[in-house]
Amino acid sequence: MNELIGQPVISKRVSEIPKSAIHEMTRLSKQIEDVAFLSWAKPTSDTPEHIKQAASSAILEGKVGGYSEPGGLIQLREAVVKKLNKYNKIDASPQEVVVTVGAIEGLAAAIMSVVDPGDEVIIPVPGYSTHIRQVQLASGKPVCVPTIEQEGFKLDLDKIENSITEKTRAIMYSDPNNPTGSVYSLDELTHLAEIAKKHNLIVITDEAYEYFTYDNSPHLSIASLPGMKDRVISVFTFTKTYAMTGWRIGYLHAVTDLVNQIKKAHIPMAICAPVVSQYAALAALNNSQECVDIFRNHYLKTRNLMCERLDKLTDIFSYIRPAGSYLMFPKIRGERGEDSISFAKNLLNQAGVSTTPGIAFQGESHLRMSFCVPEQMINKAFDRMEKYFKI
Amino acid sequence: MNELIGQPVISKRVSEIPKSAIHEMTRLSKQIEDVAFLSWAKPTSDTPEHIKQAASSAILEGKVGGYSEPGGLIQLREAVVKKLNKYNKIDASPQEVVVTVGAIEGLAAAIMSVVDPGDEVIIPVPGYSTHIRQVQLASGKPVCVPTIEQEGFKLDLDKIENSITEKTRAIMYSDPNNPTGSVYSLDELTHLAEIAKKHNLIVITDEAYEYFTYDNSPHLSIASLPGMKDRVISVFTFTKTYAMTGWRIGYLHAVTDLVNQIKKAHIPMAICAPVVSQYAALAALNNSQECVDIFRNHYLKTRNLMCERLDKLTDIFSYIRPAGSYLMFPKIRGERGEDSISFAKNLLNQAGVSTTPGIAFQGESHLRMSFCVPEQMINKAFDRMEKYFKI
Repeated sequence: MNELIGQPVISKRVSEIPKSAIHEMTRLSKQIEDVAFLSWAKPTSDTPEHIKQAASSAILEGKVGGYSEPGGLIQLREAVVKKLNKYNKIDASPQEVVVTVGAIEGLAAAIMSVVDPGDEVIIPVPGYSTHIRQVQLASGKPVCVPTIEQEGFKLDLDKIENSITEKTRAIMYSDPNNPTGSVYSLDELTHLAEIAKKHNLIVITDEAYEYFTYDNSPHLSIASLPGMKDRVISVFTFTKTYAMTGWRIGYLHAVTDLVNQIKKAHIPMAICAPVVSQYAALAALNNSQECVDIFRNHYLKTRNLMCERLDKLTDIFSYIRPAGSYLMFPKIRGERGEDSISFAKNLLNQAGVSTTPGIAFQGESHLRMSFCVPEQMINKAFDRMEKYFKI
Repeated sequence: MNELIGQPVISKRVSEIPKSAIHEMTRLSKQIEDVAFLSWAKPTSDTPEHIKQAASSAILEGKVGGYSEPGGLIQLREAVVKKLNKYNKIDASPQEVVVTVGAIEGLAAAIMSVVDPGDEVIIPVPGYSTHIRQVQLASGKPVCVPTIEQEGFKLDLDKIENSITEKTRAIMYSDPNNPTGSVYSLDELTHLAEIAKKHNLIVITDEAYEYFTYDNSPHLSIASLPGMKDRVISVFTFTKTYAMTGWRIGYLHAVTDLVNQIKKAHIPMAICAPVVSQYAALAALNNSQECVDIFRNHYLKTRNLMCERLDKLTDIFSYIRPAGSYLMFPKIRGERGEDSISFAKNLLNQAGVSTTPGIAFQGESHLRMSFCVPEQMINKAFDRMEKYFKI
């Protein structure tokens, strides 16, 4: 045993964080030849050409060598403001925007600026595992509140309100949801906003999948609801919208007083977002959004295909048709669902299909499957599963 | 007053962090026309051409769109290992390396993995203000221990040992030092290593300026000393070495057990470092290091020039000739040094010279001046100061 791994030197905060099941499945998947890979929320398409060209030009023109302002390039924040006003109906200004290292760093900075050790953050689950870890990293306490699966993983607003204590500082969620693909309705968000106001809570949103909703389920930003702007930290990213996950570029919006505090966490974690990626993001915002429509149409098609294929496996899985994101969260029927890690490992090792066990999202008895992949990948995975389950 | 700014919603950790004096001076400097800018540790040279070309090619070849492994591209970690073995004499392997968002994110992840709320970290001062903030962000307590200015800002090893309590978890420093430019000797580091071993402490280093030492002052990595590898988290960056501050790309080294814990902080803060910058860094390591020699020679020349010009202002400043980095930390003589913020603001507003007040580095009565600028910038600044101080 290494003497370092005792209490004296490793912090409790990290030792309490479990190893990432998402990255563990990726690691195991790499050991399997010709795997059918449905386990990462990483689009298989490359970043659109015009964005790549703009980033390349910015490099060669000598624009990206030095730090930007910590909050980000002013021209990027101005473009973000236009998008926030138009798409999210958030009345924003450039000094209310911080450009971040993907949504992740923005969420981490938001949590750090709101949570002190022992403070509680309510997270509806199934939910994105990294949110839970970010609260743990702040030595805070994630309070996981189940959603209502049979109603499409709807927010359980009574349970949320009943979970509030003196220690509760914030409610944090992703919408469209990772991993369930649910999209919260105006009614749910209005009710949630009332709870936040009544109990003086901050709301931290992860709106990474904002452009990917289907079946006329509009994406709504809770910061656009009356009286909410002052208490919402809205976090967005370019990485999902424009297939730019490797570029690590996102942004957050909050009122100036709050942003000034968030920057005090942002600077010691990043100084500023990568400048080359800021120029790429600027090109993404300032050009035609046709590429986003193309991605959305593709994901709609692959979602429908995945649902069709799941319909042939009704003995094994039940599922809620996702209204957003490029993820879904089928439930494993019966006893075999009791241990989603073993189920996912067997599926990987015996059928060559990589998925993510639901327990990673506080949703035991489920699997997360990504449909941000080509159709043939979905067909390959389900052909194998049909054979494996002897359908 | 905004109701948000009370105790219930802003964390104590961020409210206790003062506004960054470095970024505040940058902001104020932008309001002054034709300012002589000596206040940021940001090289004015652009990133070398071959690095820019390699990054541009990686983009156009479709290599940078998706996430890398959280630890970084394997080929980059392999190149880093070669450099660590050769230059730093650290016996490393790829699984002991995490590629980070500049040194900053690596340092933040290191602190998070070692410090729990209330734990203490010893920081020799004057020291880099961001280290202090990173400890505060972890709800830890920075314990600032003065160095010995008259002996070239040498470590005060007795004071360091006397500052250790039951709560002490780590010692954190930059070497070459930001802001003093001091370079720690083998004797100092050997003694520091003994203290760390005796009291079972982690050492966290910030070796951002490792390639910029002068006058035969070699840079030494404390992780290379006997028995130290197990308890050192060594943090490095490409951004200073290759004039790449905007690319946000660095790395850390620690033994595997420790690295596995640090990754649990790295993932919720960043997921992975920007992939385009990882390809740029790979090109930086795998090509001629002549550009580094050119930067070093330039900084040696500008250091010498800055010292010569300070020699004409001996009524105003005394100084220690920096043996490393591209920063120096002259002391303001007499009463006028008692408030370095007012001194720096007057210098900015009345002489058009931008510097950083020493108090930002826990070194009141000093100014930090950067010499990573063209010679004419130094001459312009000092011409103005001579006129302003009526020399």
